[in-house]
Amino acid sequence: MARLYGMIDSGNCYKPRLLMAKLGLPFEHVEVSSHTGATRSPEYTAKNPNAMVPLLELDDGRLLAESNAILLYLAEGTRFLPADAYQRGLAYQWMFFEQYSHEPYIAVRKALLTVPRRAGEATPERLALTLERGNKALGVMERHLAGNAFFAGAEFSVADIALYAYTHEAGAGGFDLADYPAVSAWLERVHADSGHVPIEWLP
Amino acid sequence: MARLYGMIDSGNCYKPRLLMAKLGLPFEHVEVSSHTGATRSPEYTAKNPNAMVPLLELDDGRLLAESNAILLYLAEGTRFLPADAYQRGLAYQWMFFEQYSHEPYIAVRKALLTVPRRAGEATPERLALTLERGNKALGVMERHLAGNAFFAGAEFSVADIALYAYTHEAGAGGFDLADYPAVSAWLERVHADSGHVPIEWLP
Repeated sequence: MARLYGMIDSGNCYKPRLLMAKLGLPFEHVEVSSHTGATRSPEYTAKNPNAMVPLLELDDGRLLAESNAILLYLAEGTRFLPADAYQRGLAYQWMFFEQYSHEPYIAVRKALLTVPRRAGEATPERLALTLERGNKALGVMERHLAGNAFFAGAEFSVADIALYAYTHEAGAGGFDLADYPAVSAWLERVHADSGHVPIEWLP
Repeated sequence: MARLYGMIDSGNCYKPRLLMAKLGLPFEHVEVSSHTGATRSPEYTAKNPNAMVPLLELDDGRLLAESNAILLYLAEGTRFLPADAYQRGLAYQWMFFEQYSHEPYIAVRKALLTVPRRAGEATPERLALTLERGNKALGVMERHLAGNAFFAGAEFSVADIALYAYTHEAGAGGFDLADYPAVSAWLERVHADSGHVPIEWLP
């Protein structure tokens, strides 16, 4: 059976859990937390030298890191990845947007405000920067979702899973989703997609 | 003819130029620079609300942003994207690694040291953090390349283009590639791959 190394409270780790739940793929969850230093242990960095979670270990022991790479790998040939080349390109686009322009502000601001060992990093400058950039990312999403049901077009895809993971918890980072009605309506469409499970779900 | 909006001195913009040169795809380069504010103009943000380059405009006007998404879109069905599902997953993995764990430190440190309008951001703390994280990324690459010719396995792929773009200029950011012999040998293999062009190349 496949193993998924990850943290139960990480949006990045929730992404593959949510997709595997939707696909009905059996897997074992192995908790490896950055809070306790477990992601930096020699045993774990032998598997992922970048010392991050999630990490997928296939039945045969092959390893795949990076939450959005795991999503794309697992989604191949399913309804979660568009067959059309351009729509597929849009899925890629929004997944790179998520990792470069969204997660480093929206996820990180939540961590700065809620993870005790990161409180020292929560300077006024850092909180102001992450607030500004996170709101910029939400604004870009709002503009797209005003004219599109989902990120890669009319159908739900892995791009929606990638962006849902931290957007649905943005309030804990001090972002007010009431300012983004199209984003809020999209969150409801994600909830309504078949097989949805919440972040605390485990197999 | 396709248009590629980008900056001649940006590694992210070099990525699709290099792939399009290798593929022999004709395109028009349109210079849009963040140095002059052009990426933040109303004309440009109408095309890319995230106000970043590169941006690919297809013959029919459809738009695609994010350097690595453009690479994956253009590489479909060519030798630059593995057909094998797992190797393809590895290409994705290294491309997300590049945008999350590499570019924000290696590219950004070069910008802090060389772009006049960013000098104010070049605090000792920021320079120390980007040096530490950039060296961490180079160490992760070194470990992989000690046992693999290229990032997705035995063959050159878009993952190599993505990681080459800023690694080959890491010296300008204060990183010493002599400390990374496997990375240095890989740079030579990238140079030797058919159709290579330098960052200043334009169609």
